[in-house]
Amino acid sequence: MNAEILAVGTELLMGQIANTNAQYISKKLNDIGVNVYYHSVVGDNPIRLKDSLLAALKRSDLVVMTGGLGPTQDDITKETVSEVLGKKLVLHEESLERIKTFFNRINRKMTDNNVKQAYLPEGCIVVENNNGTAPGCIVENNGKIVVMLPGPPPEMIPMLDDTVIPYLREKSEYRIVSKYLRVFGIGESQLEELIMDLIDKQERVTIATYAKDGQVTVRLTAKSKKEDEGLCEILPLQNEIASRLKDALYSTENEELEFVASKMLLDNNITIATAESCTGGLISTRLTDIPGISKVFKRGIISYSNESKIENLGVRPETLERYGAVSSQTAIEMAEGVKKIASTDIGIAVTGIAGPDGGTDEKPVGLIYIALAHNSGTETRELRLTGNRIRIRNMTSLNAFDMIRKYVMKMKG
Amino acid sequence: MNAEILAVGTELLMGQIANTNAQYISKKLNDIGVNVYYHSVVGDNPIRLKDSLLAALKRSDLVVMTGGLGPTQDDITKETVSEVLGKKLVLHEESLERIKTFFNRINRKMTDNNVKQAYLPEGCIVVENNNGTAPGCIVENNGKIVVMLPGPPPEMIPMLDDTVIPYLREKSEYRIVSKYLRVFGIGESQLEELIMDLIDKQERVTIATYAKDGQVTVRLTAKSKKEDEGLCEILPLQNEIASRLKDALYSTENEELEFVASKMLLDNNITIATAESCTGGLISTRLTDIPGISKVFKRGIISYSNESKIENLGVRPETLERYGAVSSQTAIEMAEGVKKIASTDIGIAVTGIAGPDGGTDEKPVGLIYIALAHNSGTETRELRLTGNRIRIRNMTSLNAFDMIRKYVMKMKG
Repeated sequence: MNAEILAVGTELLMGQIANTNAQYISKKLNDIGVNVYYHSVVGDNPIRLKDSLLAALKRSDLVVMTGGLGPTQDDITKETVSEVLGKKLVLHEESLERIKTFFNRINRKMTDNNVKQAYLPEGCIVVENNNGTAPGCIVENNGKIVVMLPGPPPEMIPMLDDTVIPYLREKSEYRIVSKYLRVFGIGESQLEELIMDLIDKQERVTIATYAKDGQVTVRLTAKSKKEDEGLCEILPLQNEIASRLKDALYSTENEELEFVASKMLLDNNITIATAESCTGGLISTRLTDIPGISKVFKRGIISYSNESKIENLGVRPETLERYGAVSSQTAIEMAEGVKKIASTDIGIAVTGIAGPDGGTDEKPVGLIYIALAHNSGTETRELRLTGNRIRIRNMTSLNAFDMIRKYVMKMKG
Repeated sequence: MNAEILAVGTELLMGQIANTNAQYISKKLNDIGVNVYYHSVVGDNPIRLKDSLLAALKRSDLVVMTGGLGPTQDDITKETVSEVLGKKLVLHEESLERIKTFFNRINRKMTDNNVKQAYLPEGCIVVENNNGTAPGCIVENNGKIVVMLPGPPPEMIPMLDDTVIPYLREKSEYRIVSKYLRVFGIGESQLEELIMDLIDKQERVTIATYAKDGQVTVRLTAKSKKEDEGLCEILPLQNEIASRLKDALYSTENEELEFVASKMLLDNNITIATAESCTGGLISTRLTDIPGISKVFKRGIISYSNESKIENLGVRPETLERYGAVSSQTAIEMAEGVKKIASTDIGIAVTGIAGPDGGTDEKPVGLIYIALAHNSGTETRELRLTGNRIRIRNMTSLNAFDMIRKYVMKMKG
């Protein structure tokens, strides 16, 4: 089966947003063995949309459309598809009820134009939307499949994952199976050198590496009739690469480093408290992205002032005066302080200069100290990061989670 | 002039990367009055690329192509364009010299296949690449223009900005100017009803609305000979819409709500401390995204346990026992407590259930209390949010910043 992704929305053509939906959908379709041959984007214009849809139906078995399902006049996707396929739009009572319920739940008045969203092509499979008002649908017609999903990713993604992909998986003949090995602390070119011999002799299992936001990913991909077969083909190569990457490899399941480290805390029931300065709550935010983390995460102190470091964390004024707020000594006292006041197993603390201002020759922007206090002592890490404020804060957070992960690994032996 | 952006690259169709080039180019073309009507993406396949190019040339005056200019065999963009336009590829000596120099500079041996990159369609305008090896080019043919640029954004962007846009600006007769009105607290359909009469009679200034992550944007766009003229045309409509949206309108400069609210604190020198439960540091993280915020942001307490609420914020145990951690009363004591301990002008506090677990019939997932303590009292907001943990935390944060913004507005009269 080959597919085209057709996005509808003038905001894409104006460059206001990137077409991240096309990327997400492509990935998911590739995973289930559907070849994506084209992406296209067209504005909220009936004639151009009609022409694009006709071209897509001519060259592709499956057309996945995003956007243009909203309540407003320039939302024309369903109307255009119905016209092209010769299907009537009929009121889907259940969807209308869901829309009404949705408005009730969020305490908003449902306006009349929202009724339009409950009209769907006759005979379609309705795709429920639990995060918004516009339902999606799947239309089968003369051996072709047209899928319509709303544009906002928080609505589109669960609808694709929960309904559309399972539906399409049934129709696809083979599977593409990939394993994603996530690595922290080794650069992409260094990693490539480590596994160059494997890359050079790759055959049925392909190897690709890519870097993003301070982390590197190795993708291993196999194509097979069944998912299990593909995974079996990948496994020996995965093990070989894992043995070379050692503890820089933190996930073979494409998980984020923050998630892996937080999960280790949860699984081992190791309680934690945080003391953050330059990251301003970022480490705590990422910890608390994980449902259920309240079992082990007890409290966080964002000590953005010296007073807060002294009053909330027990950092000694002499330490601040002698070594400065951005120093290994202050980080240590912050970590030990928060561990003590929160009575947790570990305390993690960060202090540094995220920029763009506040740097000096002696302590430049990007200078960061992280301290991890645990029951057998306190470890520190000094970073000298480059890049903008966003990158510096992100790399600091990743390093903190890397320290947490390595500590738990060592502790568990 | 109307345009199509045609990207060439299998990695886009595999979903490995998003087509951010299309977004960037679209924005730049729109700014100089070139209408972008289509985006398309096709893989490194000569037949499908040829078909896509023919379709693009039929419907567009300008085709901007990205990708497929590299040294390898599956880089086929120039070859395909030359075939379609009936132009020969000829060696461009200057480009060959530049490629040789580039390899020298990065201390790598130039391989033979790199010579291919110096072959360009006869009669083209060469677009120099100072950040990579593949030159780009502009080909004029029978009243159509084809631009070819390399795929990597660090190479493509300066080539577009420095050579292609100035070239096209000369050919374009007018400019497109847009203003983005950002709105919080009114849904997209409610907003549309408020300004329906203006939408219905839109003429030279066009109006579009779109929703994203709990916020709505109204885009006003004008087309004129000069940028100033466009802004003047937009202004009366902008003022009319602003007067209807009242304090739901938080930016006419396309800024984020968090940025606007944080900036207001900074500009008015209003100090703030935060006490977060379910958001786990998200509000503080967003506050501290703003450089220089340490002038007004003093500290944050992430009170993920009852002990922390009592010890760090001074919440009374009786309050927690009687009303529960998720209650308006607890939120109020958290806000007042953090304001007091940090000696700030305002304290903002959040408590709630972000899910997916932890909800009950009485206190379901999505129930959130926000309290804002200031010198004349404490305001609260109760939210009943839907969606997943990410959405609930995001909407909670937006509401907190909305309360901050409205408080500062009221205070400033």
